[in-house]
This record gives sequence, C-alpha cells and structure tokens, in this order.
Amino acid sequence: MPKGFGDQTLRDRRADAIELLGGIPDAGALPTDEIAAATARVLAEPGVPALQYSRTAGIPALRSWIAAREGVAEERVLVTNGGFHGLALAIQALLERGDLIAVDNPIFPLFLRGAELSDARILPVPVTAQGIDVAHLAALLEAGERPAALYTVPDFHNPSQGTLPAEQRVELVRLAEHYGFLVLADNPYRELRFRGEGVSAEPFNTSSHVVHVNTFTKTLGPGLRLGWLVLPEDLAGDVAALRARQDSHSSTFVQAVIAELLTSDPGIFDATLDRARALYRERSDAFSAALEAEAPGVFEITPPEGGLFLWPRLADDAIDADRLADDASAEGVEYQRGSFFPSGPGTGADRHLRFAFGDKPVAVLEEAAARLGRAIRRQTA
Amino acid sequence: MPKGFGDQTLRDRRADAIELLGGIPDAGALPTDEIAAATARVLAEPGVPALQYSRTAGIPALRSWIAAREGVAEERVLVTNGGFHGLALAIQALLERGDLIAVDNPIFPLFLRGAELSDARILPVPVTAQGIDVAHLAALLEAGERPAALYTVPDFHNPSQGTLPAEQRVELVRLAEHYGFLVLADNPYRELRFRGEGVSAEPFNTSSHVVHVNTFTKTLGPGLRLGWLVLPEDLAGDVAALRARQDSHSSTFVQAVIAELLTSDPGIFDATLDRARALYRERSDAFSAALEAEAPGVFEITPPEGGLFLWPRLADDAIDADRLADDASAEGVEYQRGSFFPSGPGTGADRHLRFAFGDKPVAVLEEAAARLGRAIRRQTA
Repeated sequence: MPKGFGDQTLRDRRADAIELLGGIPDAGALPTDEIAAATARVLAEPGVPALQYSRTAGIPALRSWIAAREGVAEERVLVTNGGFHGLALAIQALLERGDLIAVDNPIFPLFLRGAELSDARILPVPVTAQGIDVAHLAALLEAGERPAALYTVPDFHNPSQGTLPAEQRVELVRLAEHYGFLVLADNPYRELRFRGEGVSAEPFNTSSHVVHVNTFTKTLGPGLRLGWLVLPEDLAGDVAALRARQDSHSSTFVQAVIAELLTSDPGIFDATLDRARALYRERSDAFSAALEAEAPGVFEITPPEGGLFLWPRLADDAIDADRLADDASAEGVEYQRGSFFPSGPGTGADRHLRFAFGDKPVAVLEEAAARLGRAIRRQTA
Repeated sequence: MPKGFGDQTLRDRRADAIELLGGIPDAGALPTDEIAAATARVLAEPGVPALQYSRTAGIPALRSWIAAREGVAEERVLVTNGGFHGLALAIQALLERGDLIAVDNPIFPLFLRGAELSDARILPVPVTAQGIDVAHLAALLEAGERPAALYTVPDFHNPSQGTLPAEQRVELVRLAEHYGFLVLADNPYRELRFRGEGVSAEPFNTSSHVVHVNTFTKTLGPGLRLGWLVLPEDLAGDVAALRARQDSHSSTFVQAVIAELLTSDPGIFDATLDRARALYRERSDAFSAALEAEAPGVFEITPPEGGLFLWPRLADDAIDADRLADDASAEGVEYQRGSFFPSGPGTGADRHLRFAFGDKPVAVLEEAAARLGRAIRRQTA
C-alpha cells in the first residue's frame, strides 16, 4: 500500500484542522429519524426476528429489495458488512494465493491492503479521465499477461473521478469472458450522481465474470456496515460457504432495520438520494469556485459528476506538491496527497490532491480554500 | 463436520413441529424496548457518529465497558460480529495452514467448520461431566502430541453441559504456556448460570496463551452479531490487522446502540441476565420434569446449571437413538441427535439427545415431552 494513506490519523495536526480526508457522507444526508422509527417497528414485531439468527446470504426482505433494484435474481445477492467486506470475501473465496490482479492505476489504496489476503501480485492498468483504460488492458492481455482478476471503480473513480463509458464496460466484460478473469467492479459512489447522464451497470450484472460490489455506506451511512455483492450464479455458493465460516451473516438487526426503512416507504431511498445529490453538488461547486477564487489558475479542476471527491491537478509546475501538503497542514487543512494513490509508475497522480468534501458545509469548505490559498502563497509569494 | 448438524433445516418436518434445535435466547428475555430507546438516542446525537466509520478494534465506549466487565486492559479487547466470528478471526490470524488443533470430544460441531479456514488437523480430547479432560490432554502432550491450539467451551459445555472447575482451568493454562499452544476458550453461555456457583474466567483473562471468546448473542440477541475477544497483549495487533483487511470493523450502529444501552443504565445488563436466568431455570426444570413424567426412567438427565440445553442420555439400551429421532420428527419434535457431536471415537454421545429449550414456553416444552413420550412408546410399547 502506498505509504501514508492509512497513517493520516497519526500525523500532528492543528486542533482546528479541517479534514478533507475520507469519503464520508454528511450526517444531514442520512435518514436518521426514519432509521430510528424503523428500528422501533422491527423491535416491536412478535418474536423479534431482528434479534435472532438469520441466513448467511441475507434476510429475504433485504435481498429481494436489492435484487429488484439491481435487476438480478435474488439468489445472486449476498448481503455483506459493507463494500470493503464484499471485496475481501471475493478475494478470499474466489482467488488463489499469489494470483495476479490487474488494478486501477491510480487506485483506491485500501484495495491493496485487502489484496494482501491472497498475497496477490499486482498488475497496474492506467486510468484515464474516463475510468480504467480498457484498450491498454487489452494490449497487456494480448502481450500475454494473464490476471486472475481485475479491480476497478467504474463510477466516479476513486481517486480520479472518471466514469467508465458504456461501450468500455461491454468491452471490459468481453475481455474478462474471453481471457477468463474475474472483474471486481467496486461501486460505492454510483448512486451519488449529481450531474450528467448515468451509465448503466447492466454489463456488470449480466456477466458470468463480474462480481459487482455495492454498499449502503455512502448513501445510508458507513456505520451501518451494510453492503452487498451481485455474484455470478455459479460463484454465489462458494462465497456464501466462506461467509458461513467467517461471521455467519450480517447483523440481522441492521438488515431488518434497513429493509423496513426501504420497504415501508418505497420512495424513501430515492428521496434520500435526491437530497444527498443536491447537497454534494452544491458543496462540490462551492468548493471548486472557492479554490479558484483563493488561488486563481493553480488548481486545474475537472468538475466531478458525482461522488464525494475533488481531484484537482496542480497546474503550476513551480509548486512542490509535498511541500504544499505540509504547508496546508500547518495552515489547518488535511487532505490526501496524490502520491498516495498510484499502484504503479506513470500516473502523474503526485501532481494531484484528493479533497473529500461530502461532510463539510460550504462555509467550512470556503475556510479550507482560504487556508489552501495561504499554503499556496507560501511557495508563490 | 459431523454430517447432519448443519442440514437440519433441509429435512422434511411437520408444519407444527416443535424445534428444539439451536441455542436461541427467548425474545422475552431480550431488552427490546430499551434497545429501541437507546437507538433513538444515538441517532439523535449531533453528527450521528453511530452512522459513521469507527476504529477496527471497536468503539471506545463499548470496549471500555467490556474491559471493565472482564477485568482486563481495553487494548486487549477486540469487538467482533459474534462469538463464531471471534473464533474465525483467531483461527485465520493466529494459526498456520494444517496446524493441529486439540478440541472437545464431543464438540460444538460448527467449530470444525470454522477450523476448515486453516485446513486444521483435529486432535480429539475427551470431555467429562466437568468439561474437557485436562489430565487426558496432559497425557497426550506427554506422549508427544503438539497441538498449536486447543478449543473448548469451559462453561456449560456444548453439548455436554459440564463446567470446567477452577483448578482444571489453571492446569489447562499451565499446559498451554508450557507446551506453547493457544487456548481458544469459547464462552457464549457463561452469563446464563441459573444454579450453583460460577467458576471464574480469570485464568483465561490473565494468560499470554488464551484467546477468550465472548458474545452478546445469548444475552442480548444473536441478530445483533456482536461479541468480543479478550486477546493476549502481543496477539491483539495481529488479529486487528486481519480484521482491518476483512470487514474493517463491526457495525458502529450496533456498537453504539449496545454501548448506550449498557452505559446509560449501568444495572440493565445484570437485570436482563437475572430475568433470563430465572426464565431458563424454569424451562429447564419444567422440561426435565415433563420428560420424566412422559417417559419414566428413559432419559437420564443431569440437571444443567445454566445455558440453553438439556443433554439427556438414553438409559434404556433397547431404544435405538436414530430411530427415536426419526419417530420424534414424525411426532412433531426436532432436536439434535447426539451422534452429530463427536469429534472422534469413544464418546457415547450417540446415546444422548441435545434439546434446546431457551426460546420455548413451558407449555410448548410439555407438548414436546408428550410427543417424545409417544415416540419412545413406538419402540417400547
């Protein structure tokens, strides 16, 4: 794992530091009152099934809601303790020790930590402004590389924010089926599109060679630890068998509460998403504008179409990126430096910064931009 | 794993069957109203930390409550998704592939499923009326057996219901430290003592060679999926490192709700346990009496001192145990036959029956006893 990403919390920082570190949803975007009400209802059910054992793959009410939303058979859905858990289960159940995994470059660094579960070897694949470079992957495969799996974030790539176009999804799946590797399509941000046209996940949900990794983390709250896998039919049993040997099943209580939340008011999930999208669009736009106002021409920003991050590039070659991160910390802003994200050489990611804006009000983001402006001027003034 | 134990749900059974299969707490013994109230409070906290990410080892409020109850340093507590998850983490993080594990004989069969995570080899150790036979274990060790770990249920052994005496705990720990193996002390029922004197867990919590596996499953509800490990100081880091790579941490939501429940009213846990113990004592005694009334002299019952099971022996050699299970099923009673529980030869477990009485009212247990009486008379009449 790139040194530093996981160690952020260990660094000295100002007591009043503004932390733009993690993809954290805003508390105000989560349906807390409705979750409390759903909890009261499930705990009042006769026999209180929410507090009892349940099936490994998930409770029927939740699996069937997920299956309907994904457009897949319920048997292909396995409820997990969040997206990362889904990745870990897939790595442990479906890969062999030492297998080669093709991965995004740059990459969500914690995936590399999960890949240690199978002592995986890593094959970096460049990520373009539109997600993983499928043509480059095809060339690697033609040149003889034989990964057992490929890891990518197709919607609002983390960190670089691009979305894989429809035809590239079809081609990626074709390559997976032709060369016999498994795509781990990690999709935590897909529901948070606040601009532009969405790209269908159907190619991922209709292939025998894709594990589609999903979660309620960014939409209903990371603290639930609740997500799901859409698995190819013939792999669902193997993953469930491993799951039964690790922690039996996800919390019946959490599953029952969220199933009650989602099914008692069929409009609540989309209404929650609509509020969240408006909030994140406002924050994304306000923070982008504030950065430009505080340091004109310094940050080259591609406005994201969704998700919780900005990934600006430092346009001015005279600015030292590492010194900027240190100066920003001294000014009271913490972010993830781009150099944490490469899985291999050649990305230019070290000239980028990853700002997480999701859980910060506009006024805080404007203060963060002002502090970043001061940090920039330490080098340019 | 002994064939059959996990397959019970697949068997044909009567629609009105009384299922005495699993160690399930009674819904009425769980503090459901208080959990709902605690949930409402944690979801009303500013910023709603219950719905956000938290630390791998557990949230401080819950770890510190557990540490105080166990009498250990907080750093030694790792919050898990229940007792089975704790065992799975210990097996995966602390054992090597193919290691030898000494285990109870008879045994809680699902442990053997968990042991598949490390392709463990199994060394059965007899269980007496007072838990694992430590003298027999000592003889095996003297004869040259070198297990890497030992698995036992010290309080209200599953299935055979004995409790390991204090001096045997000390000796077991001494052997572990002398021969360098790790004791996995699995203690889900320890808080459910309804008769007799408890035996301290201190020898388990003060050794460098014991992982003490605990859970709220039998006391606050299996559906929470919430438990904990007490780990030796020098092993806590390895287990947390694996945990961080699997599912990050247990649900912050569930942890926060239970921490709020336990700390907002410091007497609630013991009050809940007192009610549960009285309920299970009444059910255990009533079911024992009903079995004797319906089939005098047939079931040799050692009255359990706690937990959720009866483990009677068929005193009449003329009764075929497998035929009895089939006849009972036809009469409308399902239980676990003793033959599911051996981990090796020589137990006599096939002459036993495991009845789970925890979640059944007395009237239902009396009806179950009447049906069992009819099943017995199919062979004896």
